Amino acid sequence: MENYILKIDCSDAKGLVYKISDVLYKNDLNIEKNDEFVDGENKKFFYRAVLSGTLEITHIKNVLLSVLPKDSYISLAKKTKKNIIIMATKESHCLGELLLKHDSGELNANILAVVANHENLRLLVEKFAIPFHCIDVFGCERQEHEKRILQVLESYKIDFIILAKYMRILSSEFVCHYEQKILNIHHSFLPAFIGANPYKQAFIRGVKIIGATAHFVNDNLDEGPIVAQDVVSVNHEYSWKDMQRAGRTVEKNVLSNAVDLVLEDRVFVYGNKTVIF
Amino acid sequence: MENYILKIDCSDAKGLVYKISDVLYKNDLNIEKNDEFVDGENKKFFYRAVLSGTLEITHIKNVLLSVLPKDSYISLAKKTKKNIIIMATKESHCLGELLLKHDSGELNANILAVVANHENLRLLVEKFAIPFHCIDVFGCERQEHEKRILQVLESYKIDFIILAKYMRILSSEFVCHYEQKILNIHHSFLPAFIGANPYKQAFIRGVKIIGATAHFVNDNLDEGPIVAQDVVSVNHEYSWKDMQRAGRTVEKNVLSNAVDLVLEDRVFVYGNKTVIF
Amino acid sequence: MENYILKIDCSDAKGLVYKISDVLYKNDLNIEKNDEFVDGENKKFFYRAVLSGTLEITHIKNVLLSVLPKDSYISLAKKTKKNIIIMATKESHCLGELLLKHDSGELNANILAVVANHENLRLLVEKFAIPFHCIDVFGCERQEHEKRILQVLESYKIDFIILAKYMRILSSEFVCHYEQKILNIHHSFLPAFIGANPYKQAFIRGVKIIGATAHFVNDNLDEGPIVAQDVVSVNHEYSWKDMQRAGRTVEKNVLSNAVDLVLEDRVFVYGNKTVIF
Amino acid sequence: MENYILKIDCSDAKGLVYKISDVLYKNDLNIEKNDEFVDGENKKFFYRAVLSGTLEITHIKNVLLSVLPKDSYISLAKKTKKNIIIMATKESHCLGELLLKHDSGELNANILAVVANHENLRLLVEKFAIPFHCIDVFGCERQEHEKRILQVLESYKIDFIILAKYMRILSSEFVCHYEQKILNIHHSFLPAFIGANPYKQAFIRGVKIIGATAHFVNDNLDEGPIVAQDVVSVNHEYSWKDMQRAGRTVEKNVLSNAVDLVLEDRVFVYGNKTVIF
Repeated sequence: MENYILKIDCSDAKGLVYKISDVLYKNDLNIEKNDEFVDGENKKFFYRAVLSGTLEITHIKNVLLSVLPKDSYISLAKKTKKNIIIMATKESHCLGELLLKHDSGELNANILAVVANHENLRLLVEKFAIPFHCIDVFGCERQEHEKRILQVLESYKIDFIILAKYMRILSSEFVCHYEQKILNIHHSFLPAFIGANPYKQAFIRGVKIIGATAHFVNDNLDEGPIVAQDVVSVNHEYSWKDMQRAGRTVEKNVLSNAVDLVLEDRVFVYGNKTVIF
Repeated sequence: MENYILKIDCSDAKGLVYKISDVLYKNDLNIEKNDEFVDGENKKFFYRAVLSGTLEITHIKNVLLSVLPKDSYISLAKKTKKNIIIMATKESHCLGELLLKHDSGELNANILAVVANHENLRLLVEKFAIPFHCIDVFGCERQEHEKRILQVLESYKIDFIILAKYMRILSSEFVCHYEQKILNIHHSFLPAFIGANPYKQAFIRGVKIIGATAHFVNDNLDEGPIVAQDVVSVNHEYSWKDMQRAGRTVEKNVLSNAVDLVLEDRVFVYGNKTVIF
Repeated sequence: MENYILKIDCSDAKGLVYKISDVLYKNDLNIEKNDEFVDGENKKFFYRAVLSGTLEITHIKNVLLSVLPKDSYISLAKKTKKNIIIMATKESHCLGELLLKHDSGELNANILAVVANHENLRLLVEKFAIPFHCIDVFGCERQEHEKRILQVLESYKIDFIILAKYMRILSSEFVCHYEQKILNIHHSFLPAFIGANPYKQAFIRGVKIIGATAHFVNDNLDEGPIVAQDVVSVNHEYSWKDMQRAGRTVEKNVLSNAVDLVLEDRVFVYGNKTVIF
Repeated sequence: MENYILKIDCSDAKGLVYKISDVLYKNDLNIEKNDEFVDGENKKFFYRAVLSGTLEITHIKNVLLSVLPKDSYISLAKKTKKNIIIMATKESHCLGELLLKHDSGELNANILAVVANHENLRLLVEKFAIPFHCIDVFGCERQEHEKRILQVLESYKIDFIILAKYMRILSSEFVCHYEQKILNIHHSFLPAFIGANPYKQAFIRGVKIIGATAHFVNDNLDEGPIVAQDVVSVNHEYSWKDMQRAGRTVEKNVLSNAVDLVLEDRVFVYGNKTVIF
């Protein structure tokens, strides 16, 4: 017996939970856990279940499609490890966290490679016997740089790309190759302090809390769907460097948490928001 | 169209969600929201739904009972305000919080009366035009004191009793009159610092966080099922009086939160634990 | 023996703590508690002490001035209750919190009066025997409205004005009458969601945390020096009304906390920031 | 110019801050930052300063001793990296966190070696080119086992020993070799759930928050002075394994935070408590 993840989103209608559970029951599948959410205002229905049993994926999807609204999006897949690429720049804390969790078997993913625009993380990555590709930006336009990154990425079969403090803005052209597949960590509680140097911005504003936000990357800088956020208290004694230091722990925790949610297929992207079960 | 709350707990079996949603669907009831939880280890199933539609309570319960396991406990009732009694001693912060929320219509309950063992909260309670019964303990055994309280309580039709810093231990004899209906706030993150003077205990132990716990009252002091907990940071500068002061905010927030959960029928008591949807 | 609060800010120089403690020691004053902070970048020094002993305020201030840098600002005063006015609109939770703390003697202030632009909080305020002034805005320009408020305020000797969800923007002309004396609660973790309807803004953005910010009011909307902030987690199930409800607890806790800090003379306003001991 | 850390504790007396700052001022030393705390009840004074300037340690200590109370304990030392040993068993998360911070230069310490009672962390430790000593317990009494560990430890010059989930209880005989030098992480918010399997205990009790506690090790199991604590929310869906997983993040954050405090000489052990600046 295997475990499967079933995800459905469609326009809301009466009896959806009944119809879905009817199909699952009659196909002798156990629902280990299920969650549903209805956005009443926009009449949208979201459903996720962890199933156990023996099934033929195409068959079950077809039966479900035959009873659900026409606009239903259904995903049904064995619960397996995802394949991910991590992109980074110079800072090691977020990358290191993911490498450690991968190494101890706590990450529900295979890290296929790390792609960076500087050399200095190579030593760390290679300790863990993971391929490291440095694609530096020197003497190279953004378009050319991204093209070279894409060449590397296309040599892998990728479920998700994790930006673990990758400090360059990705163009729309790049992002559209991996829609809803690029997860970024931004070092502020968005939408506060969009863009460069959020800790300096926070210091100048004199805030008493700083934070971090993990979000999917879309066309607009730091405006993609938010997956996870957390904060930490600061006070007048904190220089912006101190804020940066305190923020690192929040950044890596928030990213690590968001990565887990994404790897377990618990996140629906819904317009500019997320529904997370 | 009315709203109803349906709560079911029973031993786990295959197809329970299907069977329940089948009944609801065929009786033309909308599920506004539903949650379920299976305790896999003990094979127990918990289900809660907010329904809208027109229904005959006894009929629906009977149909559900006919398709669910024999040991099913089903509660189905219109979503209405509960009737509560608050018990207190001398401190006003938890009581005041509930009085204010009641006054502004934010509490899903009617406060029928306040019962105290001292006079000094009378002025506050009577500002809000709520009956205040002072049943003092002077020259009176515990048994006699509780008997007098019970006489007052029995003159009201009560859904829940909220102990808003009622500082006397209730006997098993008293508690058994209102099983799973008495909610208490204890001024520590249980199970740390059971019993008297938890802030002094916390001060002596030198902890860096203090907390509060809302729990149902059972036979064992401070050992009933926990509904809500929260904490706040402290440091070496805090005397135990300072901890008490800082704790007050946590106490009233935790109690207020737990009261909301209980009043909205979101809490299942399950052995010595709670399942909360 | 009385308690005094000494606050000093001046440009930084060598030996300031020594010079201050020298003066206090030689005048036979006990330092119950002292804190200092140096902003190294801007060469600014902040100092606060709680003193006990017998002293002649003008004398001590003069001696201190004679040994400290020319630009020193010194405040020295007996530790006493402040006089405050609360301004509100329709929502009762922040106001109610302050009224309750005042009533139980936990607030280090006398609430002289409540000024509102609607009638509906009158009943609550008058329960606590505090003067309530309703100055409505109907058929009245902002300038005229503020003039009428100022007339009421000027009849009181005020240390601080607390905006407990007063939902109208105050003009610069108004604010300059009470510089660094008006404390506001804004229902977002500033600088996110400045202006109207922050919960709707937060809902639309799909954030996973919401918050509240207590800050001094200056000329720029929601940009004054921040005193306290806190947050609470939300998720996709929260409508903006749910966020508003969850936010109320944070709002009143943050405001109550900030009011305590201000009333205990623990806050220095420093440019657009605060230093808090 | 060098930075020094000055720490003083002694019985309280009038003018201590004055006397200390007098000595520092007259020896031409800058106070970059200072903190003091008086335990009024027990008449104890604690003081810590970060100094910059040129000084002769023995001379300054002697001058200070000559003006301070007889029972003064003074420590004055250059701000340098500490030498630490990490002890672990099988779990990698706390150890890995410290190895990563060490590797990126964020840890104010040299990790001299890792001592474990199992082999399975060797691979991880050796990636970072740090000596790994496995001293297993098989066929060996506790006394003998600890003797062998001590032999290894004595070959290093150690400031602190960090127990990063070392899962064996250390005897009083062992602990007395490194009094106030052994920092442990316990996987509960002490004093709740002392001893073995705190997550199972927490699961059985049905708590809504779990936590972790970093504390110095003394003779009594899990009763040493607490340095740092933090918590995370859980609910009825968490098995004890889920709690353990969620707890790992808290454990490593709390330990990492406590280690930073200890390495920066910010912690005074005071009876069974800590004073932390």
